[in-house]
Amino acid sequence: MSPERLITLYGPGLLGGSLALAIQEQFPETKLRLWARRAEAEKGIRARGIDAEFFTDPTAAASGASLIILCTPVESMAALAQQIAMADLPADCLITDVGSVKGQVVSELEPILGKHFIGSHPMAGSEKTGIEVARANLFVNAACLLTPRAGADAARLRHFWETLGCRVLEMSPEEHDVKVARISHLPHMMAAITTLAALRSDPSAVSCVAGGFRDSTRIASGDPSLWTGIALANRAALTAQLREASAALTELLEILDKPDEAALRRLLAEAKALRDSVPA
Amino acid sequence: MSPERLITLYGPGLLGGSLALAIQEQFPETKLRLWARRAEAEKGIRARGIDAEFFTDPTAAASGASLIILCTPVESMAALAQQIAMADLPADCLITDVGSVKGQVVSELEPILGKHFIGSHPMAGSEKTGIEVARANLFVNAACLLTPRAGADAARLRHFWETLGCRVLEMSPEEHDVKVARISHLPHMMAAITTLAALRSDPSAVSCVAGGFRDSTRIASGDPSLWTGIALANRAALTAQLREASAALTELLEILDKPDEAALRRLLAEAKALRDSVPA
Repeated sequence: MSPERLITLYGPGLLGGSLALAIQEQFPETKLRLWARRAEAEKGIRARGIDAEFFTDPTAAASGASLIILCTPVESMAALAQQIAMADLPADCLITDVGSVKGQVVSELEPILGKHFIGSHPMAGSEKTGIEVARANLFVNAACLLTPRAGADAARLRHFWETLGCRVLEMSPEEHDVKVARISHLPHMMAAITTLAALRSDPSAVSCVAGGFRDSTRIASGDPSLWTGIALANRAALTAQLREASAALTELLEILDKPDEAALRRLLAEAKALRDSVPA
Repeated sequence: MSPERLITLYGPGLLGGSLALAIQEQFPETKLRLWARRAEAEKGIRARGIDAEFFTDPTAAASGASLIILCTPVESMAALAQQIAMADLPADCLITDVGSVKGQVVSELEPILGKHFIGSHPMAGSEKTGIEVARANLFVNAACLLTPRAGADAARLRHFWETLGCRVLEMSPEEHDVKVARISHLPHMMAAITTLAALRSDPSAVSCVAGGFRDSTRIASGDPSLWTGIALANRAALTAQLREASAALTELLEILDKPDEAALRRLLAEAKALRDSVPA
């Protein structure tokens, strides 16, 4: 018997919608609630066959929930947490989020939600957004990073994500933000930079596009507002990684200027060895 | 009836092997020859079910061929062309290549092969190499760029590539090299740079890898020697594109330093609009 009697999801986009579909499959006994800012969102939820109670009042949506998951943009989470904190929450109520940044989110939400809150970051998504592209298997084989405060017991939250198919890792919010700057936020910005450098001064070059360009720049199609929020919320770690990229690019340009064939082969071989270390 | 009585392919790697498989399917009446530097290569060819006459003598392999395709690394093509020029070539013998660079290849091969030669660049490939990963449908829907000299008739070569499923475009070798620097060589180098910046100083971050990193750096697993050859052969155009990338990265770092939220959203929206212009 799962401890999750009633789960409330805030924000029915790609992640919230996928969570709803996955919870319906994996926790068929659990009651589900979905909150959205706008009443019109209910239509999209019903169109995807999600059988959840629908709310636009954030406090009412939280009342009595055993598990609450914030799936809204990171910059709106603190205001939402204030509304949730006013609800009648059971003593065992667990609150988490799916934000791509943890330092800022945890430091904003812990003072409001106290011991109820543990940060999560399931590393699953798409360059597309909205409940239309949500899918129940989005979390299967995804890494999910939890950032419990010192002494907190994340076992129940870990079990929840593992049931959805995630590989769960625990780390501090600070370590999370540096790792994710490396693995997610940096590649996003670099995909945008590559797209700009390739096409800004000659958009007609798209006629020659092949699989390499397609894959390496896919995530540059992500939502600009969403990624602006993420980049600003993780600005220090992201900037450090972008400076590493800038230094590596300068190194490559110096090698090409000479040109130093052996050094170029070494640099590309180093990159290949690191890339080949990624599990298949 | 196809004009291709006898096709000789030089270099049985991913591209040469895929061409052999595709030709067997699309030109079943045409005789096929495969040349490799080493006699041991015949084993891999037979293992893939390719029914071709096998040669290690480049001049003998060319004799009587109606179509010759060089599928070796770009830096070895000139020496091979010298050997081919010594063969007994029919008057209608058409010679082409699949090299990723055209300025250098065309300027080296035209003086040797004269009017027989027209450059091709089918934009198909993989980060993997070797005949083991060859496949008959590699060229389906790929752009294939032809670089006929002024006044040359590329109709027969165009028909050949279209039969294999390519979208054929014609342009000058110089235009080819700039377009391909944008669309292929730049993204390759940027995938390597992103990988180095993400993992060089913390290889353990691979444990957090998600789909975005996986796709955006896939081509960093390409063969370092092959890509060293390509980068040096297209050094001028590639360097110009890498400088554009470096300038865009500096622009992004300045925006993050302020931080200027509106400018960041504009930059990401510009990249998204350009990436969204890529045909699906």
